[in-house]
Amino acid sequence: MLISDLVEQSGLPLARIKFYLREGLLSPGQATSATRATYDESHLGRLRLIHALTSVVGLPLSRTRKVLEVLDDPRISVVKSLGQAIAALAPDPASGSGDGYPRARAAIEFLGPGYTPTLPALAQLDQALEAVNRGGFPATEERLRVYGLHLWAIAQMELEGMPQGDRTQAIEYAVLGTALYEPVLTAVRRLAHQCLAAGQFPPEPVGPDGPGSGR
Amino acid sequence: MLISDLVEQSGLPLARIKFYLREGLLSPGQATSATRATYDESHLGRLRLIHALTSVVGLPLSRTRKVLEVLDDPRISVVKSLGQAIAALAPDPASGSGDGYPRARAAIEFLGPGYTPTLPALAQLDQALEAVNRGGFPATEERLRVYGLHLWAIAQMELEGMPQGDRTQAIEYAVLGTALYEPVLTAVRRLAHQCLAAGQFPPEPVGPDGPGSGR
Repeated sequence: MLISDLVEQSGLPLARIKFYLREGLLSPGQATSATRATYDESHLGRLRLIHALTSVVGLPLSRTRKVLEVLDDPRISVVKSLGQAIAALAPDPASGSGDGYPRARAAIEFLGPGYTPTLPALAQLDQALEAVNRGGFPATEERLRVYGLHLWAIAQMELEGMPQGDRTQAIEYAVLGTALYEPVLTAVRRLAHQCLAAGQFPPEPVGPDGPGSGR
Repeated sequence: MLISDLVEQSGLPLARIKFYLREGLLSPGQATSATRATYDESHLGRLRLIHALTSVVGLPLSRTRKVLEVLDDPRISVVKSLGQAIAALAPDPASGSGDGYPRARAAIEFLGPGYTPTLPALAQLDQALEAVNRGGFPATEERLRVYGLHLWAIAQMELEGMPQGDRTQAIEYAVLGTALYEPVLTAVRRLAHQCLAAGQFPPEPVGPDGPGSGR
């Protein structure tokens, strides 16, 4: 396909696609003349991924590039790629207090079987636990146990959906799935809180006349 | 206690505490002379909450103020307060496409019993689902079902820990619990992903010699 087909099928403006080509995020097409090149499905898939990482997930270009580099390096194993891509997605990828992540290591015991002290998610967990401690709201064993149990079940379902065989597709699925679904998870949890609270206190149902009536 | 005791017990600098007093986020102490005032446990608790919302959760002062206003208004029921506080915590509190949140309403059917179309979490869910659609990675019924089931169990455990009786404490627990624990939840999920992926692919355990060995 021509670059005009990429525009049409991706829904992205031509200038944006040319920018990604110039920045090397999107690999060049097959040149058919001095001014023409053809592209294929892989370009379209890559465009979708770049768009998701930058516009939907909101990663800066530098971190998008890092995720793509990990994805493209065949010398990196799938598991390492996953780990490194997750690290690039982290709120603060430069983090790493280097103190051995004692909070996260202590928490792992309560999260349950299957959990091992694996970086970089261990560093993220440690950071998150430090924040709840600072907020005067440390995690109880019970909370960790329940989180560990139910998030393991969620992660299991998610991993089962991972495309087998194709390395790029597998990592793309994992990276996008991790990043895109976090807001879904937190929104569902907030919804559950609200529904449960409404059950404990006088109910305030949303009327059939529209969402505004529940405000 | 004197303001110097607030400094000592909260760990916050004097200038910061004076700033919160000036901004009206912290209510004035009981004046004992023209230049002295005494404070009590409620001031200390409020300081902890302000600090958690601004420094740990990272809310701007304007939204911190909004959360506190909701908390302080006795005319607002606990459930409404919860909802409004959750709205103030939202990534984009101004959101609300006003289109009736069709994606979230459709998803609720699969999330399971107990879930009702309750604002503002419904709006957040709709936004999150719109993002996964834009990312080319729409939620399957299976994913929604598993999320709904397990996040309900998590939310139930969390609500059970909510202090009963004291309105302010209850809402404080809910607001801080919602905001502070989201990064813990997402970190545990990422850790579960990594551990499960390591089980599916050649394992890369972290050695006992420190966290760096797993990189």
